[in-house]
Amino acid sequence: MIKVTVFYPNTEGKKFDMEYYCNKHIPMIQGKMGEALKDVAVEEGLGGAEPGSLATYRAMGHLYFESVEAFQTAFTPQAEEIMGDIPNYTDIQPLIQISEVKI
Amino acid sequence: MIKVTVFYPNTEGKKFDMEYYCNKHIPMIQGKMGEALKDVAVEEGLGGAEPGSLATYRAMGHLYFESVEAFQTAFTPQAEEIMGDIPNYTDIQPLIQISEVKI
Repeated sequence: MIKVTVFYPNTEGKKFDMEYYCNKHIPMIQGKMGEALKDVAVEEGLGGAEPGSLATYRAMGHLYFESVEAFQTAFTPQAEEIMGDIPNYTDIQPLIQISEVKI
Repeated sequence: MIKVTVFYPNTEGKKFDMEYYCNKHIPMIQGKMGEALKDVAVEEGLGGAEPGSLATYRAMGHLYFESVEAFQTAFTPQAEEIMGDIPNYTDIQPLIQISEVKI
């Protein structure tokens, strides 16, 4: 199983509409990816390790697929529409990583 | 539910022993945290969004707790021993974030 993580760095002065992200963007992705998308997860940053410190990421979204190929096959034809929805909830430049799920 | 994520940046020349991490470090944490630790997850970075690009994080570990307080209560008395095990699998300086699970 692989996981595609979209990190939204916690940049001062930037917006992130968590309600839109959870209730519009993620369901839209689920609708477009279909059965290739095995699971999703979303978190909102609370803080760093030190009490009172800022979280590195304002939000993180995780999409699970069977393989990198399954992700690419499902995502590529929908990429333009999915990416086009980003300005509706944030002006943060996201960082993306693909990982292999070990546990 | 909250999630404590430990990010290991993908720094050139650094080591990360995934086998030790999954088979020794994580089980040790599970033993020490007991029922306060609701779930764990581990991933290994494969790459970034662009084909051939490096993953930002070599590895990520995730620990789930009911609340920040539950995490602190379970972790604080064990912190020294858990942190002391880190050099056994990596010389990467980890980054930690606490997040609220939204989905």
